[in-house]
Amino acid sequence: MADTAFRVEFDKAPEDQVTKTHNRWHPDIPMVEWFKPGDEFRVECYDWTGGQINNDDSANDVRDVDLTRVHYLSGPFGVQGAEPGDLLVVDLLDVGALPASAWGFTGIFAKTNGGGFLVEHFPEARKACWDFHGIYTTSRHVPNVQWAGIIHPGLIGCLPDRALLEKANKREAALFATNPERVPPLLAPPYADTALMGQMQASEAKAAAAEAWRTVPPREHGGNCDIKNLSRGSRVYFPVYVKGGGLSMGDIHWSQGDGEITFCGAIEMAGFLDIRVDVIKDGINKYGVTNPIFRPSPIEPHFDEYLVFEGISVDEHTGEQLYLDAHVAYRRACLNAIEYLKKFGYTGEQAYIILGTAPVEGRISGIVDIPNACCTLAIPTAIFDFDIRPDAKGPSKKVNAVKVATTS
Amino acid sequence: MADTAFRVEFDKAPEDQVTKTHNRWHPDIPMVEWFKPGDEFRVECYDWTGGQINNDDSANDVRDVDLTRVHYLSGPFGVQGAEPGDLLVVDLLDVGALPASAWGFTGIFAKTNGGGFLVEHFPEARKACWDFHGIYTTSRHVPNVQWAGIIHPGLIGCLPDRALLEKANKREAALFATNPERVPPLLAPPYADTALMGQMQASEAKAAAAEAWRTVPPREHGGNCDIKNLSRGSRVYFPVYVKGGGLSMGDIHWSQGDGEITFCGAIEMAGFLDIRVDVIKDGINKYGVTNPIFRPSPIEPHFDEYLVFEGISVDEHTGEQLYLDAHVAYRRACLNAIEYLKKFGYTGEQAYIILGTAPVEGRISGIVDIPNACCTLAIPTAIFDFDIRPDAKGPSKKVNAVKVATTS
Amino acid sequence: MADTAFRVEFDKAPEDQVTKTHNRWHPDIPMVEWFKPGDEFRVECYDWTGGQINNDDSANDVRDVDLTRVHYLSGPFGVQGAEPGDLLVVDLLDVGALPASAWGFTGIFAKTNGGGFLVEHFPEARKACWDFHGIYTTSRHVPNVQWAGIIHPGLIGCLPDRALLEKANKREAALFATNPERVPPLLAPPYADTALMGQMQASEAKAAAAEAWRTVPPREHGGNCDIKNLSRGSRVYFPVYVKGGGLSMGDIHWSQGDGEITFCGAIEMAGFLDIRVDVIKDGINKYGVTNPIFRPSPIEPHFDEYLVFEGISVDEHTGEQLYLDAHVAYRRACLNAIEYLKKFGYTGEQAYIILGTAPVEGRISGIVDIPNACCTLAIPTAIFDFDIRPDAKGPSKKVNAVKVATTS
Amino acid sequence: MADTAFRVEFDKAPEDQVTKTHNRWHPDIPMVEWFKPGDEFRVECYDWTGGQINNDDSANDVRDVDLTRVHYLSGPFGVQGAEPGDLLVVDLLDVGALPASAWGFTGIFAKTNGGGFLVEHFPEARKACWDFHGIYTTSRHVPNVQWAGIIHPGLIGCLPDRALLEKANKREAALFATNPERVPPLLAPPYADTALMGQMQASEAKAAAAEAWRTVPPREHGGNCDIKNLSRGSRVYFPVYVKGGGLSMGDIHWSQGDGEITFCGAIEMAGFLDIRVDVIKDGINKYGVTNPIFRPSPIEPHFDEYLVFEGISVDEHTGEQLYLDAHVAYRRACLNAIEYLKKFGYTGEQAYIILGTAPVEGRISGIVDIPNACCTLAIPTAIFDFDIRPDAKGPSKKVNAVKVATTS
Repeated sequence: MADTAFRVEFDKAPEDQVTKTHNRWHPDIPMVEWFKPGDEFRVECYDWTGGQINNDDSANDVRDVDLTRVHYLSGPFGVQGAEPGDLLVVDLLDVGALPASAWGFTGIFAKTNGGGFLVEHFPEARKACWDFHGIYTTSRHVPNVQWAGIIHPGLIGCLPDRALLEKANKREAALFATNPERVPPLLAPPYADTALMGQMQASEAKAAAAEAWRTVPPREHGGNCDIKNLSRGSRVYFPVYVKGGGLSMGDIHWSQGDGEITFCGAIEMAGFLDIRVDVIKDGINKYGVTNPIFRPSPIEPHFDEYLVFEGISVDEHTGEQLYLDAHVAYRRACLNAIEYLKKFGYTGEQAYIILGTAPVEGRISGIVDIPNACCTLAIPTAIFDFDIRPDAKGPSKKVNAVKVATTS
Repeated sequence: MADTAFRVEFDKAPEDQVTKTHNRWHPDIPMVEWFKPGDEFRVECYDWTGGQINNDDSANDVRDVDLTRVHYLSGPFGVQGAEPGDLLVVDLLDVGALPASAWGFTGIFAKTNGGGFLVEHFPEARKACWDFHGIYTTSRHVPNVQWAGIIHPGLIGCLPDRALLEKANKREAALFATNPERVPPLLAPPYADTALMGQMQASEAKAAAAEAWRTVPPREHGGNCDIKNLSRGSRVYFPVYVKGGGLSMGDIHWSQGDGEITFCGAIEMAGFLDIRVDVIKDGINKYGVTNPIFRPSPIEPHFDEYLVFEGISVDEHTGEQLYLDAHVAYRRACLNAIEYLKKFGYTGEQAYIILGTAPVEGRISGIVDIPNACCTLAIPTAIFDFDIRPDAKGPSKKVNAVKVATTS
Repeated sequence: MADTAFRVEFDKAPEDQVTKTHNRWHPDIPMVEWFKPGDEFRVECYDWTGGQINNDDSANDVRDVDLTRVHYLSGPFGVQGAEPGDLLVVDLLDVGALPASAWGFTGIFAKTNGGGFLVEHFPEARKACWDFHGIYTTSRHVPNVQWAGIIHPGLIGCLPDRALLEKANKREAALFATNPERVPPLLAPPYADTALMGQMQASEAKAAAAEAWRTVPPREHGGNCDIKNLSRGSRVYFPVYVKGGGLSMGDIHWSQGDGEITFCGAIEMAGFLDIRVDVIKDGINKYGVTNPIFRPSPIEPHFDEYLVFEGISVDEHTGEQLYLDAHVAYRRACLNAIEYLKKFGYTGEQAYIILGTAPVEGRISGIVDIPNACCTLAIPTAIFDFDIRPDAKGPSKKVNAVKVATTS
Repeated sequence: MADTAFRVEFDKAPEDQVTKTHNRWHPDIPMVEWFKPGDEFRVECYDWTGGQINNDDSANDVRDVDLTRVHYLSGPFGVQGAEPGDLLVVDLLDVGALPASAWGFTGIFAKTNGGGFLVEHFPEARKACWDFHGIYTTSRHVPNVQWAGIIHPGLIGCLPDRALLEKANKREAALFATNPERVPPLLAPPYADTALMGQMQASEAKAAAAEAWRTVPPREHGGNCDIKNLSRGSRVYFPVYVKGGGLSMGDIHWSQGDGEITFCGAIEMAGFLDIRVDVIKDGINKYGVTNPIFRPSPIEPHFDEYLVFEGISVDEHTGEQLYLDAHVAYRRACLNAIEYLKKFGYTGEQAYIILGTAPVEGRISGIVDIPNACCTLAIPTAIFDFDIRPDAKGPSKKVNAVKVATTS
């Protein structure tokens, strides 16, 4: 087994770690360790909230999360010989839970603190906790489902350089300015107060934090892509912007559906990654790369039967016709699936959480048939312990009467 | 083999068929034949242009297609006992090419006549023709690729009722009014002149045509969904709005990528469907259905290795930051893939056509990480006859020097 | 669609065809047509009995089949440039049923006329007929099952040369001599009376027929391999022994389980193959080839849930311990599966036929753990229209009361 | 994570463990712990040799293994309520390597000490060691291959009762008596000297050991089945013969090909299993069970491209024709694959080890076409880091020049 290059002391607060963590992206964050091409190493990671969420039956913690103090990342790691213009080849040799922490959580974030894809339909904070049983998971809050996880890091990428930092800051500032009071906000602008800048000297860190990227969105470098199939066993090709690359990662998911729709929609957990690094010199130019490219894993769970829901780009509240709006079309597909699942006794929150956490596939099926985008949501039928396929009798089965965690 | 319930006389124009075809949706189009639940029957279909495109090396025909004279549908078929509120269960027992017509075509539609997903990048009419070799296809216009098709109808659904007809007309009219002069247009409003209304009496047909839906978009009833996985072997559950259902279909695709991005992006062909029908009484209410639901086929080609491209919702022209815009994110993923393929010698048009026709998967991977949607495009590596995976040497292989068909 | 190179006149007896068929293997059978590398062509084939079996409810025809008048092959086809020592590359571009003949049959052969893998358990002639519904099949004789076929030729290969002919004749004669009176026989020795020798001159045909191979077993050249995964979409590499190769084929199966255990265990049918040929010069030596090699198809039906039965090499009648006998171990696995299926109401014959026809997988799982071979039989659970997995309640479901066809 | 119910002290010899292990099967071995239906627990296991093999470059240890001192099992575990006639439902929730021991080994056993499937071709002791890199493995002794493991216990089952014990002893003694001097032996008869009988009292253990089963073969209860697809994530249904069941397990494999052909053919390792138990009352009778039944895992690595080799039942040394002998047919298929791989520069031993360790599929394809059984061996092409498919150029690639470990 590879040596552990980044160790998390889970009994300490993120601010107090011996190996300094960072929760912002900035070109000048120093490498915590350097590796040679071909090296393998283990990285421990916090859950995305840095331990703010408890394995209990109250959603108060979800309601009260400080969203400026999240995404504590492990890294950055330098790779010898990696230079701007190269591709960093990263094998996710393994990703898993930590022995002492075989559980995860899913939050529906309140409209007033984060929101989510269906925030108008589910504006209140809710939580479900999940227990891991080897390769499988179940929840005491979501009945009659069990599946094998596609374990993956929600967040991984290389440090941006100054040009990319400024480009993204500029475009994001412009969008933010269009509606700075929006709830939930349009985006998370730089915010220095709660920034951790890794091993940066305090003197430099303060200025850097004022311009450092928040970690919420994916950007050209990767970052918080939340791609469920970028999972253990994958090979990823990251653009390199700074000398050494500066690979950082965190926000591990035991499982997630395409879109991660409840925002904290995956099964979130602390965990580890086993990493192998290599370099393709001048790879950005050789392959015309703007964003990361990856090859999925051979051990993703396979399902051969799905139930697929369609959605089109008509707003569900106003009936307004949108123009090829895949966002709305996917939202409608999700809402259609939720209505379906409710017929079997699931609450709306449970159905929402299933779509956020189970290995559902969200597709842009048709994007040219004006004016309707058609998106589809495919649910693997095998995750249910009963038959959810439509038949002439209708949904006679009712799931067990358990509820998700609410606030008090 | 099932009896042929709808026969197309391919040597006649659509207007001159003995069994009348229709190219609009309207509640009052009479059934061409009635079936009992459990019945099986064969349906022949035109290609989506009704024969306007030739198997040759000029894209003039694509440039000149009359887009008001397309989507000649086979049907509507009635099912005894099917009533509004039911679900019509439709098994696509088989879908295939016709023995006399073992070829298909893909068009890039000009900005001035149709357009497509990447219309600003590819504004001119282009065409590729495909030959079928049993389960495989190749093209003299797109080098070094071969794959097995996921044959499916682009267009299938039941007749709308008057309420649904009017609801969609109203919302579409409102959108159209926001920019009626746009090129390409925002949508296709009703247009009576070129309407074929099936077996409707001429006296009634004229009035109906003035309000009948154009066939371009998918809507609540299904219609032109262009979902590649709704393919031969699938079972589909359609909402029933009128007595008997009124199932119609057409626009057969030999293969398509998620999104059908070149507009006429599939491998388009004439062909047949073998259909079996059944009814779930009161199914809409029992299962909470708004749009069709389906179960995919067990014989889709399976691929275990993909190369996946990411895209985020930043406009490629202006650099503008969009808010969770999956349309733009998917466009960026497609553009990233095209740039990659060009490094192997493909022209942009060829790469665009590959993404439109090959069984690529387009996913909404992350839709909550403000402000960036993250979409992914996964290309099965096995469709190429060489290794397209990144390596240290870079893309040494260059594909054969053939070109897509252009206009004269 | 490829031109038809071999046409079967199904309304005539095999002896009376215009294009002469052959039912023996011999080096001197003349080519019926020559092709160039890269050529594609269609081949029509008889069902393996040449039309002796009817789509009815009596197994008399199975009981009475003349087993010396079977396996009427289509070919041999010559490929220009193919010489002894080469590999003939054969793409099975498509394999299918003929429009006028969308049905198939499965026979349990009587101990006194053919026998089968479980002949001591099922010594009487039985039959099941199957209807094709697009990609799916069902049977009026075998209840509650439906699946998509893996359509393949049971029999395909190149003509042997004289050396191979004589080598196999010699070794088979030696085995036959050990027990020439055995019922069923140890093998089928040459038999001239009912031989058809293609386009061979009558004067030569008589002598050749006396030494020509019977078609029953697979041999080095391929032949009657009955490999279910050598199916439509596969590429096969056949050793070439005579100038031009001499590719012949027949015995088309709509579906088969590993082992084809009821002897005529597949779903047997007449049909067609679309073939493309190519040559690898000196391929036998380059790749060290003794028997054919192949690459399976991308469109085999995929199943993700199986129920697997184990068997070990202990004789079920005597309790005798055999030494690493995979034949007996697989027989025990099959018998275990049959006992299981009987608990749901299937008759033994029906269960036997399911194992012979459905896409079950038969594995040599352990072959070194002295003295027991361990073989496994994996049944895809999705072929049943009810849940066959074990649970605490036991098998409450009983299948519909239909029977296989018997003799009168 | 489940509590560890059986802990192995790897720094002690098997004889000296605090929790007593057993290396024989006998009805009277006491349970080490009792569980309730639904309980989950972790079990640690020795590698199958109990630590006799080293991670080095000499095969002396393979040559010298004492085969009477192997298969140290963890258990037996009792389940409350399980009685003879029931089925014990065992979920293999996870199986894996131990953090301190991320390596495995494969041995070719010498003809004079164990032998293997191809013992006449490979009579000398050889060894390959494997390193684990997350979900992947590579070997310094076998070049140019890497794959993800299908981790599974080679050996698992319930204690036999006295009747089964005596039945198997009797039939095995009869076979052994036919050739007691054979090298390698026909089987392993009871042998008391090196028996460990778990927590049995010494006074009773001696007598029991004289009749206890050796662990080499699979039998009705399961045991050393070496089924690669009975892997982590599987559910297994074991017949119960004694009160409480008495579930024991060991011999963990990181990966194995069908047949485990080099005898110690898997990638052997120490490791752990996470187990969940349940009971189906009277399940043996309800489902007609003789041997264990199981459902495979959803996370087996999937491969969509194989190269398949055929073999028929003709002895490779004598040319003798065997009658439907699947053992010989599979041996010929394996030998054909080895000859093929040698053309790329692999030594025979390396090719043999690849077939024993990689996830190759061994099928009984045809078992009724007298006199030849046809077996097939399917190798996933993706395990090689180069293209092994046949082409016109022939195998230009030569693998790296490394060798397996030999004896000194």
